Amino acid sequence: MRKTTIEDWLTDLASELPAPGGGAAAGMNAATGAALVSMVCNLTIGKPKFAEHEAVMREALAEAERLRAEALRLAEDDAEAFSGVMAAYKLPKATAEEKAARTAAIQSGLAEAAEVPLAVAKVSAQVIRLSGKILDGSNPNVLSDVAVAASSAKSALESAALNVDINLGSIKDAEVRERLASALNESLQAKVQAEAIMQAVAKRIRA
Amino acid sequence: MRKTTIEDWLTDLASELPAPGGGAAAGMNAATGAALVSMVCNLTIGKPKFAEHEAVMREALAEAERLRAEALRLAEDDAEAFSGVMAAYKLPKATAEEKAARTAAIQSGLAEAAEVPLAVAKVSAQVIRLSGKILDGSNPNVLSDVAVAASSAKSALESAALNVDINLGSIKDAEVRERLASALNESLQAKVQAEAIMQAVAKRIRA
Repeated sequence: MRKTTIEDWLTDLASELPAPGGGAAAGMNAATGAALVSMVCNLTIGKPKFAEHEAVMREALAEAERLRAEALRLAEDDAEAFSGVMAAYKLPKATAEEKAARTAAIQSGLAEAAEVPLAVAKVSAQVIRLSGKILDGSNPNVLSDVAVAASSAKSALESAALNVDINLGSIKDAEVRERLASALNESLQAKVQAEAIMQAVAKRIRA
Repeated sequence: MRKTTIEDWLTDLASELPAPGGGAAAGMNAATGAALVSMVCNLTIGKPKFAEHEAVMREALAEAERLRAEALRLAEDDAEAFSGVMAAYKLPKATAEEKAARTAAIQSGLAEAAEVPLAVAKVSAQVIRLSGKILDGSNPNVLSDVAVAASSAKSALESAALNVDINLGSIKDAEVRERLASALNESLQAKVQAEAIMQAVAKRIRA
């Protein structure tokens, strides 16, 4: 994916191919948000006017770079996430033993497949929190980009959450389901902060 | 932009270069949403099971392809949108006449520059409405992608709206301001529909 041109990636996304799909799009939106946080940091760091925020901005930049790399990697992983489940569905089911082994393989495949959108949700929540961290210290000329970062990450978060939910519906083990749902819930808390960032920026722009 | 690789585009976005920035990211998010609508249509069209929705899906596919091309073009235009304003700021202002000519040039540049994010907002709203149109007839296997499309387009819409608002703040002609604000408002109506699509899909997934 990373070596594909923007035009070709969009064409592949639009096609009837199984990947890339909504999962990769969510990863891409998270990466876009992280990249915008980096941009805001890069346009703030080193300017004497914003010297008092220098340390926060430098730390945020390092974190944003890490999150962008992770989001892009997860967007690429998404295509493979379901291959384990698909392979498990193809296992033999002639005997009772085979049936049990197949069901177990499908179930562990589903739990594994849920890990990718769960990780996208987590990265997206981190991008939102990072946007909140740089909101006050950012160069005012690029304040709107802080909001665009939070908005793009919020879209990634809610999209990834849907993909986790789809998997949860097929997982039978209540404990596994509970663990995944609780991890997702923690990330989903960041949605409220994304809204607050959007509103704070809009307010300052209209002021 | 369209011939840049995903990785390089994200790196450029993250850099201190003036473009691409939040405006291009908004255009990209709108294009991603449109591409996902195309994908859902492509995975629904031609399947006997969904024959009753065939006509709606074919029409939606054609519209989604058009919107994707337009969103990508607007993402590319965004970089140039401000060049007119920047050139106007560099005009001479030694005499009263020069000052008046410069102010007029800045003002018309700002009004022109607002047209790109306004068009991104309009395209994003159209992607949201199109997601709503295909919601009932889409292949249930890719129902979540309809929601991801709406979510990505909603992020594009609210991001573009911020960029229009920034320009509105500098435009002095009340009539121009009123015309831009009213056009933006019409597009912003689609935000509520995007939320409704997300909720409808989440409800069906959890059912």
